[in-house]
Amino acid sequence: MSILFEEIHQQPAALERACKGPNEATIKAIAAAMKARDIRYVHLAARGTSDNAATYAKYLFQIVAGLPAGLAAPSVHTLYEANVDFRGALVIGVSQSGAGVDINEVITRARKSGALTVGVTNTPGSVLEQAAEFTLRCNAEPEKAVAATKTYTTSLAVLAALVAEVAENAALKDGLARVGEIAARYLPTLQEPTLSLAETLTHAERLLTVARGLHLPTAVEAGLKLAETTGIAARAFSSADLLHGPIASVAAWTPCLLFAPKGKTETVMAEVGEKLRARGARTIELPLADPGTELLSPILDIIPAQLLAYHLTVLRGLDPDNPRGLTKVTITR
Amino acid sequence: MSILFEEIHQQPAALERACKGPNEATIKAIAAAMKARDIRYVHLAARGTSDNAATYAKYLFQIVAGLPAGLAAPSVHTLYEANVDFRGALVIGVSQSGAGVDINEVITRARKSGALTVGVTNTPGSVLEQAAEFTLRCNAEPEKAVAATKTYTTSLAVLAALVAEVAENAALKDGLARVGEIAARYLPTLQEPTLSLAETLTHAERLLTVARGLHLPTAVEAGLKLAETTGIAARAFSSADLLHGPIASVAAWTPCLLFAPKGKTETVMAEVGEKLRARGARTIELPLADPGTELLSPILDIIPAQLLAYHLTVLRGLDPDNPRGLTKVTITR
Repeated sequence: MSILFEEIHQQPAALERACKGPNEATIKAIAAAMKARDIRYVHLAARGTSDNAATYAKYLFQIVAGLPAGLAAPSVHTLYEANVDFRGALVIGVSQSGAGVDINEVITRARKSGALTVGVTNTPGSVLEQAAEFTLRCNAEPEKAVAATKTYTTSLAVLAALVAEVAENAALKDGLARVGEIAARYLPTLQEPTLSLAETLTHAERLLTVARGLHLPTAVEAGLKLAETTGIAARAFSSADLLHGPIASVAAWTPCLLFAPKGKTETVMAEVGEKLRARGARTIELPLADPGTELLSPILDIIPAQLLAYHLTVLRGLDPDNPRGLTKVTITR
Repeated sequence: MSILFEEIHQQPAALERACKGPNEATIKAIAAAMKARDIRYVHLAARGTSDNAATYAKYLFQIVAGLPAGLAAPSVHTLYEANVDFRGALVIGVSQSGAGVDINEVITRARKSGALTVGVTNTPGSVLEQAAEFTLRCNAEPEKAVAATKTYTTSLAVLAALVAEVAENAALKDGLARVGEIAARYLPTLQEPTLSLAETLTHAERLLTVARGLHLPTAVEAGLKLAETTGIAARAFSSADLLHGPIASVAAWTPCLLFAPKGKTETVMAEVGEKLRARGARTIELPLADPGTELLSPILDIIPAQLLAYHLTVLRGLDPDNPRGLTKVTITR
């Protein structure tokens, strides 16, 4: 059995652990520091899969905690060496390896200029841990497959736990406490449908993934996972951005994975599904879990896409643990 | 001759006008209000082509003015109706039509919650003008082609003028004063090379556009323009993000448009060009103008991509003024 397949199945246990241990006290300490230092907004720095975790946090901080949030542009710091004034900011770096030179540079510079800094990483002792004032660990145990799975879902969980504490949101905390257990029941139901779907996609050259709002990172991460493992030209869209132009280039019979869990995006996603089908595209919805609140759906909804990527990789005769042309830690400046 | 072609050629004159007239006093008033209200960061809301203008401003505010900046997620306000606390924020909405319901909702809510709000639009009397405290106009005259060209480059110019005033950057102001004249000399040199290139792309199904840092919006806008007019599956990447996974799915002989003007991104772009060629991809660089500083390159570098989109549309027997399945004003919530 492949490492990727094993790590996908380690997620329920990893989600059980994610927010526990030293993270509990650290989350309380960060929330207290945010009040003490009058934090006005959140700035998140990440790359690749971690960037999708950061996007989830961008939505969650705004929706749940009312704090404006945006994503950093690391090159502002690494290439342009800008002197950015981060007083009043919570700056969060997300990196499973904690070794990304660019993310660490953002955190180091932000901390010097007055930001409250937090690193989210799966690697104890990493450079990110040393650079940031506070560290939240994914507690996912070492991840060996090149395609990140359990470090992604646990990053989401840890970030959600921080938002829940900052917003003093008991429902979100309760939901998080159950998410590992829900994942454990959900995962075994996904084998058959994801394998059947993968079979129909064996020769697909392109694929779209579409979502809106809080679920956009699920679409982007699903697209990234499928592209990096299977070589399919997967492309993710916000349903709103898709309608602003790119829908014109969606060819008939293009497979479109739609992520539309129960909640605020259902209506707009139903509309975009209709428009895609009107162009002759094939719309596909994966079986979704119900974590009780759509705020936590992204932690679970990515799992069938991970399994789909795994099955499609195997069907295409590729090695799921070693995608062509990629390495586990990508160093960019 | 098509409207799109005409409007592409109206850009030098539009750029001459963009920062003049009432904008001059408004820009000074916004900069003064930012000081008076102790603005700490910038939050930008836009969709489609305007989102690429907003991304340019996100880089420029940070690099030139040292102000943290990020992009809004409109659904936070329209779908989730979050109560976000925008005290200390400059919130800028960019919309050529000024009619985008979602952008206007962000501006209205941000203004109510204490933000300094600015609308950038080409449409006098639009809802955006009424919603925002200050308005900067593109002064591009009505844009009739569905694919936005002159409203994009003038939005960049107006946003750059605001940053130049906030940062009291004389070099940037001087460069902006010359950008229309440079565009006028640059445009006639682009016909032959963009037509020749379009001919080689007649049957291309996919295309990548790649840039880094401040030039990323050029790659994204070039990809959007090509996709919406020609139907090609164009996809834009930050060179850093490309190396973090998606390069694995770049097939041999994929045309890759690289935007690497003189400046801080040249070295990393040369590296990504080598890696793409090592995978057998075809790397293409369009002839670029030299505005004296890379900070203004994005205003000019998009023009050859607009012409390429025009020529390729005509070669494919499509109507450049009416892309299939699109309308000029897209309303999304």
